[in-house]
Amino acid sequence: MVLTREVIHEEIFIPPYEGRGAELKAGDELIIIDVEGKQVGDFVCFNKHDEDEHISPVHMRASLSSIRLKPGDGLYSNRRRPLMELIEDTVGKHDFFFPACDDHRYRVDFGKENHPNCHDNLQQAIKTFGLNQVMVPDPINWFMNNVLDEVGDYKIHEPLSKPGDYVRLRAVEDVVIACSTCSQDMEAVNGWKVTPLKLQILGGVR
Amino acid sequence: MVLTREVIHEEIFIPPYEGRGAELKAGDELIIIDVEGKQVGDFVCFNKHDEDEHISPVHMRASLSSIRLKPGDGLYSNRRRPLMELIEDTVGKHDFFFPACDDHRYRVDFGKENHPNCHDNLQQAIKTFGLNQVMVPDPINWFMNNVLDEVGDYKIHEPLSKPGDYVRLRAVEDVVIACSTCSQDMEAVNGWKVTPLKLQILGGVR
Repeated sequence: MVLTREVIHEEIFIPPYEGRGAELKAGDELIIIDVEGKQVGDFVCFNKHDEDEHISPVHMRASLSSIRLKPGDGLYSNRRRPLMELIEDTVGKHDFFFPACDDHRYRVDFGKENHPNCHDNLQQAIKTFGLNQVMVPDPINWFMNNVLDEVGDYKIHEPLSKPGDYVRLRAVEDVVIACSTCSQDMEAVNGWKVTPLKLQILGGVR
Repeated sequence: MVLTREVIHEEIFIPPYEGRGAELKAGDELIIIDVEGKQVGDFVCFNKHDEDEHISPVHMRASLSSIRLKPGDGLYSNRRRPLMELIEDTVGKHDFFFPACDDHRYRVDFGKENHPNCHDNLQQAIKTFGLNQVMVPDPINWFMNNVLDEVGDYKIHEPLSKPGDYVRLRAVEDVVIACSTCSQDMEAVNGWKVTPLKLQILGGVR
């Protein structure tokens, strides 16, 4: 697809403790903006024409031979094909080996009942697009700052992202995406509080 | 459950390029033996009474805050509970951030059609126990030797396991397990060839 002109098709505000979804056509771009800084965005992405294919961090690690992401890297699916590509990144530190927080995490590990959580936020967000996943796939956690030590243990530090920092992705296929403002407010993961994110979808004239 | 006497209930030979499954009662132990050395075993485990709960490497990494395994560590499920526990390990280097090799891996990344693969071996092995998973969960890859560098890229080296090396696990719940002799014969992952594994299941008098 040749873009005749770059246009913002959609701007989506993701409030704290919530998730939002969107559709992109192949060639469209998605900018995920950390509005106030230090906010992780849990992100999933499905092939619009076959929801059994989705971006899969475990397969990404194999296809990239890496646990870091660099501009130019494909975001690979469970069929070993890139559904999207990272094209710009103002932060440089993200995570794709940690799960979405979920009801079990808050109950078992923090003793909290009914805490908002990324798994359910993402599940809800993709429902709007007709996807009914009992268990959503593992996310990419944009801006998440896990630091591994030399033996393989790690600590979750505050994100390095400042207000307005962003990542920019390009859709390789037609996709449905969803993003959740990570709802963990009892650890450093989001700088001890949950703040909004913003999505911008750019593409050619439609 | 109190074991009155430790008994080998079952000994299962896993030929190269195949998978085998077994049932364990809570308290039973499983020994996975690398018969000739340098052979990875892809391993999955389900709650026998609810196949929606299974050992999940991505949740293990969160519960353990680590990408290494030590004796005493729980092997956590997607509900953040240990289904099994690692109790003995003669090697000390394993992997739980890499996917099972699958048909897509061999076709897309190696140009090979119909190559035997761990995903299908595991899928086949658990069918015997009534589990019909379209996509099997991510495995623990016993004896796999991924080495991360300081920036987060990694190389797969030959396993450190010598003939007869093993890991010993204890079932915390009643479980169905399966293990596949990793079928990758075009890389260092299994020392460039595929060799057998052996399972021993130990428990009290039944």
